[in-house]
Amino acid sequence: MGSLSTELDHWTAGPNLYPKRKPVPPAQRGIAAPCSTEQFKTKSYKHKPLAKRWHPYMSTESASRTGSSLKASMKHLQNPNVISLGGGTPLSDFIPFDEVVIRPPSLENLKTEKKRNSTSITTLHATKHDIADGTSIYDLSVALNYGQGYGSAQFMRWITEHTEIFHDPPYSDWQCSLTIGNTSAFDMCLRMLTEPGDCVLADKYTFSTAIETALPLGINFVGVDMDREGMLPGSLDEVLENWDPEAHKKARKPSVLYAIPTGQNPTGTTQSIERRKEIYKIAQRHDLIILEDDPYYFLQMDPYGSSSTEDGPATAEIRSSADFLKRLIPSYLSLDVDGRVIRMDSFSKVISPGARLGWVTASAQLIERYKYHTDVSTQSPAGLSQLAIFKLVDEHWGHAGYTEWLMHLRSEYTKRRDFIISACERYLPTKIVRWEPTEAGMFQWLKVDWKQHPDAKTKSVNALEEEIWLESISTGALVGRGSWFRASADVAYDEVFYRTTFAAAPLSKIEEAVKRFGEAIKKAFKVEPERKEES
Amino acid sequence: MGSLSTELDHWTAGPNLYPKRKPVPPAQRGIAAPCSTEQFKTKSYKHKPLAKRWHPYMSTESASRTGSSLKASMKHLQNPNVISLGGGTPLSDFIPFDEVVIRPPSLENLKTEKKRNSTSITTLHATKHDIADGTSIYDLSVALNYGQGYGSAQFMRWITEHTEIFHDPPYSDWQCSLTIGNTSAFDMCLRMLTEPGDCVLADKYTFSTAIETALPLGINFVGVDMDREGMLPGSLDEVLENWDPEAHKKARKPSVLYAIPTGQNPTGTTQSIERRKEIYKIAQRHDLIILEDDPYYFLQMDPYGSSSTEDGPATAEIRSSADFLKRLIPSYLSLDVDGRVIRMDSFSKVISPGARLGWVTASAQLIERYKYHTDVSTQSPAGLSQLAIFKLVDEHWGHAGYTEWLMHLRSEYTKRRDFIISACERYLPTKIVRWEPTEAGMFQWLKVDWKQHPDAKTKSVNALEEEIWLESISTGALVGRGSWFRASADVAYDEVFYRTTFAAAPLSKIEEAVKRFGEAIKKAFKVEPERKEES
Repeated sequence: MGSLSTELDHWTAGPNLYPKRKPVPPAQRGIAAPCSTEQFKTKSYKHKPLAKRWHPYMSTESASRTGSSLKASMKHLQNPNVISLGGGTPLSDFIPFDEVVIRPPSLENLKTEKKRNSTSITTLHATKHDIADGTSIYDLSVALNYGQGYGSAQFMRWITEHTEIFHDPPYSDWQCSLTIGNTSAFDMCLRMLTEPGDCVLADKYTFSTAIETALPLGINFVGVDMDREGMLPGSLDEVLENWDPEAHKKARKPSVLYAIPTGQNPTGTTQSIERRKEIYKIAQRHDLIILEDDPYYFLQMDPYGSSSTEDGPATAEIRSSADFLKRLIPSYLSLDVDGRVIRMDSFSKVISPGARLGWVTASAQLIERYKYHTDVSTQSPAGLSQLAIFKLVDEHWGHAGYTEWLMHLRSEYTKRRDFIISACERYLPTKIVRWEPTEAGMFQWLKVDWKQHPDAKTKSVNALEEEIWLESISTGALVGRGSWFRASADVAYDEVFYRTTFAAAPLSKIEEAVKRFGEAIKKAFKVEPERKEES
Repeated sequence: MGSLSTELDHWTAGPNLYPKRKPVPPAQRGIAAPCSTEQFKTKSYKHKPLAKRWHPYMSTESASRTGSSLKASMKHLQNPNVISLGGGTPLSDFIPFDEVVIRPPSLENLKTEKKRNSTSITTLHATKHDIADGTSIYDLSVALNYGQGYGSAQFMRWITEHTEIFHDPPYSDWQCSLTIGNTSAFDMCLRMLTEPGDCVLADKYTFSTAIETALPLGINFVGVDMDREGMLPGSLDEVLENWDPEAHKKARKPSVLYAIPTGQNPTGTTQSIERRKEIYKIAQRHDLIILEDDPYYFLQMDPYGSSSTEDGPATAEIRSSADFLKRLIPSYLSLDVDGRVIRMDSFSKVISPGARLGWVTASAQLIERYKYHTDVSTQSPAGLSQLAIFKLVDEHWGHAGYTEWLMHLRSEYTKRRDFIISACERYLPTKIVRWEPTEAGMFQWLKVDWKQHPDAKTKSVNALEEEIWLESISTGALVGRGSWFRASADVAYDEVFYRTTFAAAPLSKIEEAVKRFGEAIKKAFKVEPERKEES
């Protein structure tokens, strides 16, 4: 990982945030102007191998896509002498926003914990004529009009550079496309790579929305056993080796693996680099495409217990962005010699969920399919989202400043994780509730030993799980039900889990909520009040 | 239509923009808080009939949707005493936008044509704590976080009121859901109502992106003949009466009609109220669902030639919003006694395409299916888009101010339409190119009599269409090719059309582009230079 920190140094040298970036040509700054990831790569990937050919994996739907005639015709407008009587794109005079001003927090103030009381002195401006005036390469006249499905050239450049810095894919023809977030990207990838009746491999417990996205398409998830590092390579291999269509409603052997390698949702597990390499080898052996859903990548934390003081920063030893980068576990994309990974990144967990902005990185052949779909469905990511985040991370922070923000998040989430674990230790009956402190993401997964429940012999696991959940809500704490996250619909799950998050509430409320959840558990399990407890 | 103007009067009385609106309860102002159209209706629809049941029309995919467990669980947070350890929604502290300021143009200045040189004095502000501070019911802490698939309660109220004012559906259980624009809405409606192999009815020439959305899903469009008022009811009836699956790759009789009733794309035709009623009757007779794609609804213009002075406003006689409302042709939704219409509205053509924001209105049963799909795909419309347009149309303009903006657009687009027609009259060889002045929308459709082309006997229609198109581009004018818009893939089209828009370029450039297109035509058809022309 030493190469990553060296990588970032190229972007922080001197007062120029971007000493080695490629230009966005004027012809690509206009309304819905086409561009390509390729032109923004700052390093040469020519000597690396091309991705394998994945065309046989494409669904009937995806294989028959030819893209949008109207979007394709926009390329003719790169010639400034051509006047458009083509698309129904309104003039900027008829878009009633003359100026947008955005005030970000100061990174300096965040470090010194002044936060809300500090005066935010930076203002980022956009008007309709910044491009014409030469004050910016992106403005309201472009952002508020139509766009390409893969996003604006202006932002694509930053995305390309970011991908080089943090993932540096080991094959040649990787490309990016902006998305409207990972939920949509997953939906579109499923429609690209599966047919009704297919199965997709996933962790035994996985993101409920992903399951709910797949089921109506006739796609069933098949859960693979996990340990504290997530999916077990041996189990994955076994499922594939012994695939029996008859046991899966005649589904053919799966060709897609859905993975949340970092801060897995819901279990909070993070795959080590060794685990990732083993899984990748199994994927090669069975020629799987890996959908790497990695919104929590930058919410990797220090191991629990590595800091002992209550108020001191748990991440005291992370003093530089080089340190930060070294500690990031490499992504599947960074190991992907075959171009078999579709990596889904999102700004939802690190900038803003409401932006509905993320991106996919994959081989050119898959990105082309993705783009063709966006052009006739999502159309393009929202312009104000692109503009606001472009102003912040490209024009204001640069890659170095963005890394500082991510370091801030790492520190804050580590504190919050430490805090919820401490609350769990204080308020939960450890004979009934067990956990492994999470090392990335937003979730702490709690296992409840339902067999100790007084009604364990007369009520079903699911009935008890619901009963405890409703008890917790009526006590005033909302948690996630483990059963929402069961990947395999046909397999009996004999465990009770709850997913908690330390992301959504202020610390004082987290403590109170854990306490309430503990009360609900104790009430349900008829545990006698302990000495330390308020009665 | 008198009732519409009366309707608007309720919203303009006195200094209070919203004298009769319903409140957004505090519990519905939070992150991803659920709400319903029903609660924001200001009139009673109880006495009106319920929509027919459309469940048998739903696809396998749509029928099996059950929605998102996580989104559904957000309802428990409407109780302010419940603390969330549930969803992975970041705290607003970790969203790096402290304030957003938006400057809209002044409606007064627009009237007096001062435009860009005028000082825009209104500023619309949003911070993270406006809700907490009581200065607004919508703020950055909510808009920048996760949302419901159908959008925020704050904006849903305005959408509901707008729908009442302009469409006032004649059945009881209509509801709305925000969308990320009509392209996505159409994609989602197709997946809701069709199976691969189905056919959808459409105008003979229809929106190319809609065709391109449908084809990869295995859906074929069947074009219905048109005249200058759009689709011919007799032809629609005939296609359905004589439906022969064998002639359509064994497709069952269609149950969905795709209609662009106002300023049809690409032909520019607008269905009169009589035409709409006739089409609706045929839809009832054959029990069709009508997908009403109506982004140009408010770009209805005065008939061409109703103003004679060159610089005078063509819409001089429209003096009041009551006048404006009276002239709007009623939508299919406003005629929809059965709840068989899914109306798709968009802000793209009247506010901003880059906002990716629109809404659908349909019966509760269809909106439920739509919402279930959004929750596991688009997630929600972008928060900054919702916030910016909410600030503008709800907090600043109100329904009355928005109507003024729409009147401004009507006047401007009428002028632009008049301008392009005048340019066509001056620069196009009328023996070869013919047109009907459009009365709504953004497009002027031009018919080229290809049979007069010197190579008409040796080259195909399509080859000539492409040749002329490329000639026009090389002369410096980009127009749309008629063949992009052919609905029926299997039918031979023996006509050459080009779609031009008067929306996308400044007037002087439109004149120049029409001139260039004329030159390309003359060159292709080897027309001798006329006396008036520059050689």
